[in-house]
Amino acid sequence: MEKRIYNFAAGPAILPEPVLKEAQEQLWALPGVGMSILEISHRSKVFDKIIAEAKEGLKSLLGINDNYELLFLQGGASLQFSMIPLNLMVKNKKADYIVTGSWSKKAVKEAKRVGTVNIAASTEEGNFKRIPKQEELKLDPQADYVHFTSNNTIFGTEWHKEPEVGNVPLVCDASSDMLHKKIDVNKYALIYAGAQKNMGPSGVTFIILRKDMLERSSDSLHTMLNYKTHIENNSLYNTPNVFGIYIINLVCKWLKGLGGLDGMYKINKEKADILYKCIDESGGFYKGHADKDSRSLMNITFNLATEDLEKKLVSEATAAGFDGLKGHRSVGGLRASIYNAFPKKGVEDLVSFMKNFQKKNG
Amino acid sequence: MEKRIYNFAAGPAILPEPVLKEAQEQLWALPGVGMSILEISHRSKVFDKIIAEAKEGLKSLLGINDNYELLFLQGGASLQFSMIPLNLMVKNKKADYIVTGSWSKKAVKEAKRVGTVNIAASTEEGNFKRIPKQEELKLDPQADYVHFTSNNTIFGTEWHKEPEVGNVPLVCDASSDMLHKKIDVNKYALIYAGAQKNMGPSGVTFIILRKDMLERSSDSLHTMLNYKTHIENNSLYNTPNVFGIYIINLVCKWLKGLGGLDGMYKINKEKADILYKCIDESGGFYKGHADKDSRSLMNITFNLATEDLEKKLVSEATAAGFDGLKGHRSVGGLRASIYNAFPKKGVEDLVSFMKNFQKKNG
Repeated sequence: MEKRIYNFAAGPAILPEPVLKEAQEQLWALPGVGMSILEISHRSKVFDKIIAEAKEGLKSLLGINDNYELLFLQGGASLQFSMIPLNLMVKNKKADYIVTGSWSKKAVKEAKRVGTVNIAASTEEGNFKRIPKQEELKLDPQADYVHFTSNNTIFGTEWHKEPEVGNVPLVCDASSDMLHKKIDVNKYALIYAGAQKNMGPSGVTFIILRKDMLERSSDSLHTMLNYKTHIENNSLYNTPNVFGIYIINLVCKWLKGLGGLDGMYKINKEKADILYKCIDESGGFYKGHADKDSRSLMNITFNLATEDLEKKLVSEATAAGFDGLKGHRSVGGLRASIYNAFPKKGVEDLVSFMKNFQKKNG
Repeated sequence: MEKRIYNFAAGPAILPEPVLKEAQEQLWALPGVGMSILEISHRSKVFDKIIAEAKEGLKSLLGINDNYELLFLQGGASLQFSMIPLNLMVKNKKADYIVTGSWSKKAVKEAKRVGTVNIAASTEEGNFKRIPKQEELKLDPQADYVHFTSNNTIFGTEWHKEPEVGNVPLVCDASSDMLHKKIDVNKYALIYAGAQKNMGPSGVTFIILRKDMLERSSDSLHTMLNYKTHIENNSLYNTPNVFGIYIINLVCKWLKGLGGLDGMYKINKEKADILYKCIDESGGFYKGHADKDSRSLMNITFNLATEDLEKKLVSEATAAGFDGLKGHRSVGGLRASIYNAFPKKGVEDLVSFMKNFQKKNG
């Protein structure tokens, strides 16, 4: 069996090994079906069962009640940047956006094509190193919705508590921390996430939509851009990413085996703590980018004293089997993405490596 | 190894066994990479090579020159039904649509949201059993483009020669016969296809776009709906369906091994001939839906004298390991989809089965 390395990529990212093993075993033919998951009809009974199981799995993991619909679409979070305002920004034609990084900014860009965008807060000053405080938010009670990004992959920041928005519907891009812990879905009108971090392979967008939002979708929308189309057809208006949904189902089963999202969160907390401790106890050799109270459990961003030293660390780490550590150009330095499936042992090994590197270069 | 059955599904459909085997072998970790194809970054060198190979493979199979750009998008042909008029119906705000089945009709529905649609011809009378003749087409020389559907999965008809449209750009939905034979791409301004018939798994849309068409795409379009976005970013504006593109690359290699599209066409012709011969020589026991000069090489549709007899045939065939033969409700009867990857032996076995069934029930 081919040796696997430690994959710290920001996404598409590491998947649980038991999921990969099961998918590999079944790729030639699903047991008792005689066809590969890559070949079965999306209208077959076999797939009916898979998509129903995936939905049930997600409902049960996240504690989602019947006020919500679940969708598996295509086009990534980027297409949602448009679909959300097209479907929801229809009453007062304005919405509040909280800007905490590059992805929030991209969401704003598309929303402006549809109506008026109020920037309720932005932490761009200081290069997005923090999440705004509740009292900083300039919210408009007449807004059609409030949009925020729960985890900022590039900057390594994360909301640890949802913004309080009163009765205005709350919309969240959870692409990079979906399923990392249990959240109270009832606080949200819409949550969306590209699957390729914690959920499965790239090419599926998972959406949780509160049913009352559907009243807003106009029949004049293009069919594929209308949430109603996809709700009425159980995500099967046209052919979905069958394989992606199959993998998401396997990931849900794996999460259940770990004790659900509370079990997962405990592990994620442990992993992040190990790495942040190493940074904090390095006497300034490693400097975290994010403010301590805004730190992400998924993406840990840090810098060293010089770019040369950062390059040296990345290069030596890569040679030692730690892949994907180079930080995004907006922050520089290093970024360790340690999503759900990333093993604790890999974090411990990275920390040993970092301590050793500091000894030799500190 | 799990036994595989004969899969006559209309799509997602059968894939070449050597492709499935290679994908299965590599699913745990790509050779020399140490990560699964499901886990690698779409911005990695490994994926750069895969997407470049897939594009080169398709260019070489179809003989595509540098006047064209190739894209791998998401959202299926259904999203293209909107993207095409949004991007291309901009000069005179009108386009010609040739209607040969349900999918053409869906394309018309979205185009009407953007501008004026002229139905250049429709063969709905007679339940889409034929492709219109050139002299039937009422083409508008001022149309922004002419749209047609090269193969009609549901009705089992196929254009054997492109419509002649003069200088008006020709746009083709080739979802269900892409790569089944060599075509002269130079006759087209845009060709699009959901991958899930002849190219790969569901969740990728392949698009061939003539470069001069890009002038038409307005900057006011939503970013994800603008062809320019995807061309400028080599299909990597946001995370694409990495696994789907990887499989398409393997399928291209498989096709090359068969002698390219001319080799593939020869096999497709043989397979379809065997099945149509059985229908034609059945003395009316099996009745083909499509007119002889409009017959598809991909989807072979036929009826029996009564619905009961059709049900009996489908049920006995399923029990004997021939899956997915039930026809679409619009035509009833049976449909054998015998895409590129469907083996000749499977067609021969089906014909034996059909002859036997006729003997017992004729």
